[in-house]
Amino acid sequence: MKAFYLLLFIPSLLFAQPSVKASREWIKKDGANILTELKDLISIPNHASDLPNIQRNAEKIKKMFADRGFAMRLLQEPGAPPIVYGEYKVKGATRTLCFYAHYDGQPVDPALWKIDAFNAELFDKAMYEGGKSVPMPKAGEPINEDWRMYGRSASDDKAPIIAMMAAIDALKASKIGLTSNIKLFFDGEEESSSPHIETYMTKYGELFKDISVWLLVDGAVYQTGDPSFKFGGRGVTSMQLVAYGPNRPLHSGHYGNWAPVPGQMMAHLLASMTDKDGNVTIEGFYDSVEPISAFEKKQVMSAPNIDAQMKEELGLARTEGTGSLNERMLLPSLTIRGLSSGSVGDKAANIIPGFAIAELSMRLVKGNDPEKMMDLVEAHIKKEGWHIVRDEPDHATRMKYPRIVKVTRNENGFPAIKVNMDQPEIMGVINGVKSFTGDKAVFLPSSGGSNRVNNAIYDVLKTPAISVNMVNHDNNQHAENENVRIGNLWYGVDLMAVLMTLPNDMQKK
Amino acid sequence: MKAFYLLLFIPSLLFAQPSVKASREWIKKDGANILTELKDLISIPNHASDLPNIQRNAEKIKKMFADRGFAMRLLQEPGAPPIVYGEYKVKGATRTLCFYAHYDGQPVDPALWKIDAFNAELFDKAMYEGGKSVPMPKAGEPINEDWRMYGRSASDDKAPIIAMMAAIDALKASKIGLTSNIKLFFDGEEESSSPHIETYMTKYGELFKDISVWLLVDGAVYQTGDPSFKFGGRGVTSMQLVAYGPNRPLHSGHYGNWAPVPGQMMAHLLASMTDKDGNVTIEGFYDSVEPISAFEKKQVMSAPNIDAQMKEELGLARTEGTGSLNERMLLPSLTIRGLSSGSVGDKAANIIPGFAIAELSMRLVKGNDPEKMMDLVEAHIKKEGWHIVRDEPDHATRMKYPRIVKVTRNENGFPAIKVNMDQPEIMGVINGVKSFTGDKAVFLPSSGGSNRVNNAIYDVLKTPAISVNMVNHDNNQHAENENVRIGNLWYGVDLMAVLMTLPNDMQKK
Repeated sequence: MKAFYLLLFIPSLLFAQPSVKASREWIKKDGANILTELKDLISIPNHASDLPNIQRNAEKIKKMFADRGFAMRLLQEPGAPPIVYGEYKVKGATRTLCFYAHYDGQPVDPALWKIDAFNAELFDKAMYEGGKSVPMPKAGEPINEDWRMYGRSASDDKAPIIAMMAAIDALKASKIGLTSNIKLFFDGEEESSSPHIETYMTKYGELFKDISVWLLVDGAVYQTGDPSFKFGGRGVTSMQLVAYGPNRPLHSGHYGNWAPVPGQMMAHLLASMTDKDGNVTIEGFYDSVEPISAFEKKQVMSAPNIDAQMKEELGLARTEGTGSLNERMLLPSLTIRGLSSGSVGDKAANIIPGFAIAELSMRLVKGNDPEKMMDLVEAHIKKEGWHIVRDEPDHATRMKYPRIVKVTRNENGFPAIKVNMDQPEIMGVINGVKSFTGDKAVFLPSSGGSNRVNNAIYDVLKTPAISVNMVNHDNNQHAENENVRIGNLWYGVDLMAVLMTLPNDMQKK
Repeated sequence: MKAFYLLLFIPSLLFAQPSVKASREWIKKDGANILTELKDLISIPNHASDLPNIQRNAEKIKKMFADRGFAMRLLQEPGAPPIVYGEYKVKGATRTLCFYAHYDGQPVDPALWKIDAFNAELFDKAMYEGGKSVPMPKAGEPINEDWRMYGRSASDDKAPIIAMMAAIDALKASKIGLTSNIKLFFDGEEESSSPHIETYMTKYGELFKDISVWLLVDGAVYQTGDPSFKFGGRGVTSMQLVAYGPNRPLHSGHYGNWAPVPGQMMAHLLASMTDKDGNVTIEGFYDSVEPISAFEKKQVMSAPNIDAQMKEELGLARTEGTGSLNERMLLPSLTIRGLSSGSVGDKAANIIPGFAIAELSMRLVKGNDPEKMMDLVEAHIKKEGWHIVRDEPDHATRMKYPRIVKVTRNENGFPAIKVNMDQPEIMGVINGVKSFTGDKAVFLPSSGGSNRVNNAIYDVLKTPAISVNMVNHDNNQHAENENVRIGNLWYGVDLMAVLMTLPNDMQKK
């Protein structure tokens, strides 16, 4: 696997931006301390269900920003991790930016980690490149940008939180004033699907009314290492299909070739849903897709094509359908995320199983309604000659219908969110960012992934949000040996400084 | 579930046969004792891996037959359960019948059993009919034929062994002489696939040379409750297919609709192997099937059609292909016995899994060579555009071929065995049996299942074998709450008595 790193600090561009100059000077002076602050923050375990430690994380972050002049409070719902909320008012500012990140992390399986996930360590390069542990630098010692800090939430999202603090320190040290009011919203249960996000946004709605744009500082930069910004996310839903054979597993000898085989029936059903190239053949599946604007299309087409790189990285000789990865993210997907019938491997028995299960995941784009998309799948299933049930079929049902499938629809799906890029608030951010990154930045209308927070902001607060990415794409997010590349942390400090000092006159295309 | 019981004791027929008359008189006199002997035999645990208890079973059976005048010995291979072997010579007999049964049983999961599997109990009817425990009868007390004895191996195969002993006692009591030399061969590891069967048959081959016909007293009577006899078994083999997607599981949002989904690819591959009616569409799959003889065809077609009964019992509104269950057993089958990709249910994650596994089971009929049948499946897979590998594909292979499947072939498959019904030794048995059962007996050219013992007899000893069934089809064989219906045990005593006194002049069609 070859990694492509950030090569974006063109000196002339760098020093053209006073805020980036301030960031770089600060990193040079205080870099070792920034790393120590990140290591300290990582040391507090942060699974959302571990409420005492979650509270310690929240209190620590609250104090760090309070020390830097922010008005901080914890928004607290009973039994839920608190929202770490902060405000910083700027005299005369007409814009309020809210920086979102989450301080909770995915669960840790220590057996899979090469280090203690909560005792972060520096490595001289990535583990998969043969990196070795290096000591934490002392003040003034050189720090290599290819070093990595390993630990849970190093990238997702403790580095972004530390980058915001460092940016504030850097700007203060260079006496550069902020140009927008800043709000902070740090989620404590994003990795558990933010179940209280709508409650918090509704109950404390007054605090969020004046926000112009949310900046979701979460997720990795483009796979080439170029800076990336996304203006929405795909929606998501899922369905479980259970196809029924005989009412009990049968001897494959005594009944094989006579009793229907649920795995075979399921194979026919699933195969009918796509062509062999991976295009979905369910009637109407692509019909409700809303086209993107010409400006957005131009952004997608001008993003570096990473298909060859990703095919090499993933060992793929072909991909589905036609069109690049970026183009394919603008269409709904139908993925078989799980499949099961009988047993495999050592446990495989010579039986005709009683049923076969398929788990379907759908990612949705703007225009796709989750319920209507599931209706299309069900209409297709019926067209293929199946009888749909909602519970285990009883004997009379089994005797009546030759092909029976139990369909369970996900009741917590949500539609795609897409913020129009070409609106003044958004153009102000895009153009401000471009003055820092030049043409290397990638602006994509949608992330391939789905983000309930993004939907809550849109649905509850009716406010646009942008995904602002800083960490390396090979960060092992969610998995063992999560890490952040130090060069990406520094880039994050630059980027936060730029965003906190956006000019107020760049809101046109 | 409705059970159809044995209603075959037409009095006029019964008393026309002196051996059956002897059997019935003996059962009336000694029935309580026969049940006690069965209960005692069941009380010794009998999983093949439990060698001390296996030895106790073997010694007990050896003694029981020795007490009845048989020359008994244990054939013993190191580390393997012994064969309980016996001989009974009849002066002037020109035919030697060998009775095969196995004394080992399937493992027991006590959590699933309603009684102690090795402390057999009588019930007044089947548990699924609401049967209640009844005390063991004392000598002379009436015994209902619908009673069941529950315990491990009650049916499979301790009842057949007890039935043989009772038949010998019955004939002796009525002073009826045997008409054939009798040999006994009791296997101690049939439920573990008889791994030493070929060794025993080869090493002790001299003992088996004079056997005219083996009678495999194992398995259940026809599902209608009618007597049944089978003259072979289907062969069996299996293949494992692993279809590859990306080299690691991917986020279904960031790559869904672009990265190939192995479950979807596998669905297309599996669906291409059959039509929607369940007929195999692999080229040549049915070509090597050897037709059965006109006599055998007549037997199949005259067997009661049990399709409606079995569809009702199994909750099936349709079956595969065209033709009855009995006709379908005369064709090779292709069953998806296992299917897996990613996870299902609570564990389903929003990923594109890295691979999908399908386990294929094939049952083979006379004419099908296991290797050639697997070759046909592989040729089909290639025709569908897949590249076949034998090990995990390396990176270069992944980058070269758009569709990769790892195929693992079962190296222990074996072909079907079919004994021609219309040969003198076999006709002698068929006609002798018919003189007892009348037209109700079902003679089928092949069991749907596969039996390594049958193959060993055929391959090593070149001797014909017939499956002789006596126990009820709803006996829960292999599962929890195994049982034998007492009426079937009595029928077994009758049948063993008939077989031990077959006339010597009924060897024509």
